Amino acid sequence: MVIAVDASGGEYAPHEIVKGAIKAAQDYKVEIALVGRKDILNILAGRHLGKLGISIIDARQNISFDEHPVEAVQKKTDSSIVVGINLVRDGLASAFVSAGSTGAVFYAALASLGKIEGIERPAIGTIININSLTTPVLLIDSGANADCRPQHLVQFAQLGTTYIRELFGLESPRVGLLSNGEEETKGNRLTCESHQLLKKTSLNFIGNVEGHDIIKGSADVFVTDGFTGNIVLKTIEGMSTHWLYSLGQMRQIFSKAYRLPSQALHRDMGMDGWTKRLDYREYGGACLLGVNGNIIIAHGRSQTRAIINAIVLAQQTAERNISKKIQEEKYEQTSTDR
Amino acid sequence: MVIAVDASGGEYAPHEIVKGAIKAAQDYKVEIALVGRKDILNILAGRHLGKLGISIIDARQNISFDEHPVEAVQKKTDSSIVVGINLVRDGLASAFVSAGSTGAVFYAALASLGKIEGIERPAIGTIININSLTTPVLLIDSGANADCRPQHLVQFAQLGTTYIRELFGLESPRVGLLSNGEEETKGNRLTCESHQLLKKTSLNFIGNVEGHDIIKGSADVFVTDGFTGNIVLKTIEGMSTHWLYSLGQMRQIFSKAYRLPSQALHRDMGMDGWTKRLDYREYGGACLLGVNGNIIIAHGRSQTRAIINAIVLAQQTAERNISKKIQEEKYEQTSTDR
Repeated sequence: MVIAVDASGGEYAPHEIVKGAIKAAQDYKVEIALVGRKDILNILAGRHLGKLGISIIDARQNISFDEHPVEAVQKKTDSSIVVGINLVRDGLASAFVSAGSTGAVFYAALASLGKIEGIERPAIGTIININSLTTPVLLIDSGANADCRPQHLVQFAQLGTTYIRELFGLESPRVGLLSNGEEETKGNRLTCESHQLLKKTSLNFIGNVEGHDIIKGSADVFVTDGFTGNIVLKTIEGMSTHWLYSLGQMRQIFSKAYRLPSQALHRDMGMDGWTKRLDYREYGGACLLGVNGNIIIAHGRSQTRAIINAIVLAQQTAERNISKKIQEEKYEQTSTDR
Repeated sequence: MVIAVDASGGEYAPHEIVKGAIKAAQDYKVEIALVGRKDILNILAGRHLGKLGISIIDARQNISFDEHPVEAVQKKTDSSIVVGINLVRDGLASAFVSAGSTGAVFYAALASLGKIEGIERPAIGTIININSLTTPVLLIDSGANADCRPQHLVQFAQLGTTYIRELFGLESPRVGLLSNGEEETKGNRLTCESHQLLKKTSLNFIGNVEGHDIIKGSADVFVTDGFTGNIVLKTIEGMSTHWLYSLGQMRQIFSKAYRLPSQALHRDMGMDGWTKRLDYREYGGACLLGVNGNIIIAHGRSQTRAIINAIVLAQQTAERNISKKIQEEKYEQTSTDR
């Protein structure tokens, strides 16, 4: 089972990506195909080739964050994103991981792999794992579809349920509809209508949930449109980053007051666990659900640790063959106009 | 200048409300009219009557959080919310503070005070003050209007600008439109259209901002619809509550490891500043902007400290007579259909 990794995508590419890939190959025995400029990758990963199960696939072009996703994908057929996703299409890789342009990955996956039959809108499901007292939760859609209709939200709920059930072995994941109040009458037009549709499905729909429920883990799958989901995700990231900064400040103040070395403090206060969970670079990745293939989107600012996590998530996703599981699901029809 | 305070509204009413009101009268010389059941308030605040500038206004009824706001306001004409807002209408109070049902306060204010001429949708502006390195920011609308049209968002931007300018003395507050990407093409239909309208105003519109910009303070006024705003606000609350919990845990672990008293630790680590900023009960309140009167909405779980802050915010709002300032603004027309 080969995991293709976009070595050219992300703010810290190629160095941090290659480091992460090598570490994932070493520590988790993942077979990896690095996709990017062969000349550069030979220098960076050359001595690991072969023996670690790392190979290189040449892709001369790179799609940057500020390019228009659709145009870039159409024009740059030799980009790491297009080449990597084609490896999945052609059965040469079981999953593809990229920290590059989310839009480009999304459109390339749509164009090359196609939507799974019956799925109207593939969506991004992001795993949030900040609270150590609860199991991780899934936020879907966290950015692919800014404008949605109720039946899209129902499909997100179905996609999320399948993913979380297979990934974490939860038999019947709790599905919550993100809204501005718990009562079923609360919400905007989209969520009020979605609520009524969700009630009719056989999903474990627990009703509306609110913003604070995400960190509390009150549901396993948090369903929302991609506009709201993206803003919520970035709010959480911003809070986490600020919190990390504050922890650092606190440690410094304390280290001075008690004349203790900062490192020991970090260890003794159990800060490691917290900082790891707070650092978005640590908490892995997101899965593009609803296309014919397993695609993992890592944070654009991913460094070694985050890339390792994303590769491990890709392997888990591929081992459970999530995209096949979704193909096999007979998603219930919730609207008559489909 | 009298500030009317809803003594019956909120989860910790009446005790915490009365305690907060007495403290605000003592420490900030605020003249307060407690609105609620006279018999109970006489017992709780009786010995402070007169000398502290505290008076009692009898209101026999109470609107609970689970009542339908519109029906409750229409039926319960002797409720603390209706009576308190009527004090503002009749010029007997300069502002009204309530930790009760937001919906009920909203509808009572609409019914009793009315919308300011030219304002289509009054909105809730919430001050977020978690990051000590930046000035506080305003999130508007943070819950009043779940479904909005572009011109509503433009008015929210205008209302927020007036409020922040007057409250903090900022000459030209930076207005950011909350979206799922910085580029002006990013967003849902609502934000894309709103972006174009906002560009044409004379506001200090800095473009789209993202979720993480709130904690960074990248704008002074964050404009969004009430659905998204409410979810974002509650996500921040949830993160803050979790963070507070984690700080407590960390203190315990460390206190054990170094055999230091927990209280000293709290002080020495400068935790006070952080915990204060993280505790939503501490960071005051929100202002209902766009009605003919100054209305402050406190968090439903407000305790003494939060009530003091909300009363102080009410006094500042009344001193600057924000609702009058909004009446005087000649808001630019942004759409032809109005």
